[in-house]
Parts: sequence; C-alpha cells; structure tokens
Amino acid sequence: VIDRAALARNIARMAAFAAARGIALRPHAKTHKSSAIGRLQVDAGAAGLCCAKLGEAEALAADGLASLHLTSPVVTAGAIARLAALNARTGGLSVVADHPEAVRRLDAANAGKPLAVLVDVDPGNHRTGVASPEAAVALARGIVASASLRFGGVQFYCGSQQHVRSWDERREAIAVRTRYLETVLAALREAGIGVPVVTGGGTGSFAIDAELGVLTELQVGSYIFLDREYRDCELERGGAPAFEPSLFVEATVISANAPGMVTIDAGLKALSPDAGAPTVIGVPGASYRFMGDEHGAIVSQGPLPGLGERVALIPGHCDPTVNLYDAYHLLDGESIVDVWPVTARGRST
Amino acid sequence: VIDRAALARNIARMAAFAAARGIALRPHAKTHKSSAIGRLQVDAGAAGLCCAKLGEAEALAADGLASLHLTSPVVTAGAIARLAALNARTGGLSVVADHPEAVRRLDAANAGKPLAVLVDVDPGNHRTGVASPEAAVALARGIVASASLRFGGVQFYCGSQQHVRSWDERREAIAVRTRYLETVLAALREAGIGVPVVTGGGTGSFAIDAELGVLTELQVGSYIFLDREYRDCELERGGAPAFEPSLFVEATVISANAPGMVTIDAGLKALSPDAGAPTVIGVPGASYRFMGDEHGAIVSQGPLPGLGERVALIPGHCDPTVNLYDAYHLLDGESIVDVWPVTARGRST
Repeated sequence: VIDRAALARNIARMAAFAAARGIALRPHAKTHKSSAIGRLQVDAGAAGLCCAKLGEAEALAADGLASLHLTSPVVTAGAIARLAALNARTGGLSVVADHPEAVRRLDAANAGKPLAVLVDVDPGNHRTGVASPEAAVALARGIVASASLRFGGVQFYCGSQQHVRSWDERREAIAVRTRYLETVLAALREAGIGVPVVTGGGTGSFAIDAELGVLTELQVGSYIFLDREYRDCELERGGAPAFEPSLFVEATVISANAPGMVTIDAGLKALSPDAGAPTVIGVPGASYRFMGDEHGAIVSQGPLPGLGERVALIPGHCDPTVNLYDAYHLLDGESIVDVWPVTARGRST
Repeated sequence: VIDRAALARNIARMAAFAAARGIALRPHAKTHKSSAIGRLQVDAGAAGLCCAKLGEAEALAADGLASLHLTSPVVTAGAIARLAALNARTGGLSVVADHPEAVRRLDAANAGKPLAVLVDVDPGNHRTGVASPEAAVALARGIVASASLRFGGVQFYCGSQQHVRSWDERREAIAVRTRYLETVLAALREAGIGVPVVTGGGTGSFAIDAELGVLTELQVGSYIFLDREYRDCELERGGAPAFEPSLFVEATVISANAPGMVTIDAGLKALSPDAGAPTVIGVPGASYRFMGDEHGAIVSQGPLPGLGERVALIPGHCDPTVNLYDAYHLLDGESIVDVWPVTARGRST
C-alpha cells in the first residue's frame, strides 16, 4: 500500500533539494520497479532513471520510459545482444563497465546509435568497479577508442556507507572515498579525457554528496518510500530534508489464541527479512516477529488487534519487499484510489 | 532451474515411503506454487495438495487441481466469501479453523456443497491453532452442529521442530508434542466426535510421524527441492529416505576485479536470505556472501569462475526463493527442455 500524498511529498522534496543545489537527479528504479512512479520522478525534474538489471530497463522502456542508466555491468553475449537491441529502440540509454573484455563485447555488438558507457569505479567495497585510477583511465581510453560506444562518465557508488548510523561517521566515510574518486577524475583529466557525468550517491549520502560537490548526479532510490532501515539512519540526517514512510504492507490477524500476541498472514513471502523486523503502525508498544514463510506475530503487553483486523507495517527494507508484490494499492485518505503494477517485478537478470 | 530427473526421483521416493507405511500424502504446494509440480505429486499417488493461502488455492484450482487443503485459518468476510465461491466450483476443498467466530462466519457464508473444516491444534509454537483439548472439542462441536460445514479432522503442524539438527532431539521434540496431540484426539473421541483425518508433519519429521503412527496424512513440502537448510538436517535422517537437491539458482559473474572473489548478479531479490547463504555448486572451496539487493560475492582461496561464466547455487530456503521467480526452467542433462510458470507466485493472501 502506498500513501499517495506522502509519496508525492517525498518526490517533491528530493526534486527541490537537487534543484536548489544544482545537481542532477537520476532516481534508482530498483527501489520501486514501477513505470508510474518513475514517470512521477521524471515529471518532477529527474534527468532519467537508474536500473539495476537489464530486464528492469527493458520493462520500463516497454512502458515508454527513456534516459535509463544501467548501474551494473552487462557482460554475457546474450545480455549484450539484448542491451544493443534496447539501445536501438530507446533514447538516452547508458550502462557501466568495469572490465576491458566487456567493453570489447559491447563495442562489437552495438551498431547504429552510439551506446553511452560509464566507467564504474570501486570505492573499496569490491562489489563492482575498476580497482585503480590507472584501470579507470585504461577502460575510458578503450571506450573513447571504440567504434560504437561513447564515454559517458564515471559511476561511484558507496553502498554500505549509506547505512552508517552516525551522521559524522557517515560523512567522514563518504568524504574519504570521495577524495579517492577525485584522484580518479584527476587521472582522467590528465589523460585528456573529459568526464561529462559523475553519478552515484544514495538516500543515506545525497546531502553529503551534494556538499562535497564531486558528483554531478544523484542515484537516490529509497527516499520515495523510506523503509525502517533508512528511517533509523534519518535520526541523524545533518542538513538533508526529511522524508516520510509512504509504503506499507497491510496484513490481517488470522489467529488470536495465545496471550500477548496475535498471528498475521505476512511472513517471509510478504516482508523481506534481510534488514530485520518491520515497524508496526497504529498499535502502541507492539512489535513484529517473523514466524516462517507465511506468518508473523504481533507481540505486545498492551491491547492487540482482534481476529480479522488489519495491521499496517513499515517494511524493514523496501526494495526486496516491493519485489514480492505484483501491484501497489494507492491510498488517498481512507480509500484505495488506484492500483499500479510493479512493472519490473522479478526482473533479476 | 529444476533438475527434472532429481525432482522426479524425490517425488517417487516420498510416494513410495508413504505407500509402504500406509499413510496418506498431501504435499504442501506452498513450496513450489506450481500446478505442474502439484500434478506430478498427485499422479504419484498424493491424496491432494496443501495450500498456505487462499490465493494459492485459487490459482491452482484455476489450473484444474482439486482436493486442496488450506493450512491457515481464513477469517475475514472478504476472504470467506472467496473461499465459499472456491468451494462451490472445486472438489474436495478443506480449510482449518482455530476460533469459534471464524467457524460461525464460514457457516454463514458457505452454501450448497458442504465445506470440510479441520480443527487446527497448536503444538505449543503459538503460530495458529486452538490452545487446549477443551478448545478443540468445543470448536469441533461447533463445526459438527453447523448447517453448511463438515468436520474434516485435526491439523497439527510442528513448525520449528522440523529443523532440529540432531535426529534424536528432533524425534524427542516431535514425540513429546504427539503425546499432547493424542490427548486432544482422546478428548474428541470421548465427546463422541469421529476424526476422519489427522494431518501434519513436514520434510524434517515425516519419518518420525509415520513411526509414531498418529498422523494419518503428511503435509511434506520441501522434500521435492531439498534446500540447503533441510539438507543440513538430512545429515542425520534416521530411517528416512534420502532426497537430493533438485532446485538451483543460476547466476552470472558480472565483475571480477578484486582478489579472492567475483561478483554475481544474484542478491536479496534472487535468493531469500532468511536461512543464510546458498551453497555454491561446482566451485570447490567457494562460498557465497550476500552483497545487497542485486549482487552476491563468490569467495574462494582457489580458482574462481571468470567474467560472464555461470554459477549454480542451492538456495538456503527454497519456499521464499521460489516466490521470487515467475518461472522454472526444467533441465534435462545439459538442456532446458521446458518452462513451467510459478503458478501462485506472490499470492500472499
């Protein structure tokens, strides 16, 4: 369930922040996987959207969205053929690379319209990205020298640093890594390679990134929903604007026979457990406990909802929870006013 | 990806076990959510299938499957109306109840064909079920006295006990709870209420349940795929037949720039993390580490797969992992020979 007004406020607040700081916004669609939400973000001024997987970009492009940036490398022959076909039929597509072999394969497969390729730089988390300024320059040179690719810039995403609780420690973690990013950008400059875009950042770091002034584009995703995990981080948010939870899972009490608890019909298949328990809304003092694939417990020393009653939960982690559902139900006040498909649900490759 | 031959062997082994022990088999479809697999189980002799959610039963019934048993209480007016409609168009439907109000609502909504209702008995895990023999008798009397319901028997599912590692401790945990179940059955007998079915058990306990001889029907689910979690339990399996992993997630190496690891395109949206890491197949000494929503690391001191190569993984927990995918790819030797939809994917209510 989405609180439509809260979603709209979150989108407007981030758009206003980016406009005021003169930094481009390219929200990450991996959070919502929704054409409808992506369109709201673009209508609010976003330069385009990020996608985590090629299948996600294909699904959003099929709904007419363009200016899509793929934030993970695409390396197999099959996937590169799909990417080249998507580039031929979509405007403003870009992708990252972190290996010369992938650049060679992309160049060989793409034809006609140039494909923008950005060099992904590893900030030290070893998820994706080249491992040194020298590797970044070599890869950028390969892209510049290619027949069918265009050098699109640099991507630099500090994943785990988004969730450092203390604002000062988070700021320092991002600042240290951004100083490294500056050495990469200096090496590219010295090699005579212009860098049109420096993209990265997230909901935990965007205000820091804007202050540091090295990124030209923000890949924020979770701000639109603000899950429990990011809400915990927002307790210390420095100069960042406030966002509010706009995404809820509604479940039903299906058993109420044990003291101090009731059982609801939402377990591991309804709420991703990776970030821990969701937050229970509207039941003071109550907490949620996972009870297997299909069930959860609402536990409290105080009053509990009765058999058949609804319970609303703020997911622990919005992205993998959204990926469990086929549709969003849009709430306006007390009424469901619309149903939006989770357009790219399950598009994991 | 399903190894079709391994799946067939698992189905045949459980069917042979149940036939030899003279106990009915009603495999739980919450594991696979697939009409095709459900049909294979029924063709091998199963009395029908279990479903965790009404939406799951609706999806399987729409594909022509019958004799479906709902293992969780259905309590809201809206869900009960759907259940009554499903009963009208499907043969052999049954549902559990654990509260007199739910029985009243079921009786009021059902019409025409009687609906079989089983009393769900809590083994002490406090997930669902009545809390005492007296409550079981009172609820069964309510079902017997109703106008449109038929008393279908008793359900007794020992959830967390399925995963006790030590066989002797697991056997003792199940035996203690089964002795309690016998007091419930005795109370029903003394009340003059015949119990046609006693259903329960799982992949961790079915051989113990068969030996104890109180259950008349087994609700085993995970045996068809045998995830890493149940495989760990199988290291001690007493007299139970051996099953084998038949379900795999295939992922692709998309980054290979850091020493001792490569990054694959399968993270929290491709592998449910609740039971921990999946097992890496075919890379000796390698292990998997979650790296967020979209990625995982394959870590090893030895040789690692190269960029673009495939890696096969045995999921930590099959049920919530299957629920992430729209389709199974059926592997026969080296070839994908069929694609089966995950019929009831995402049907969480």
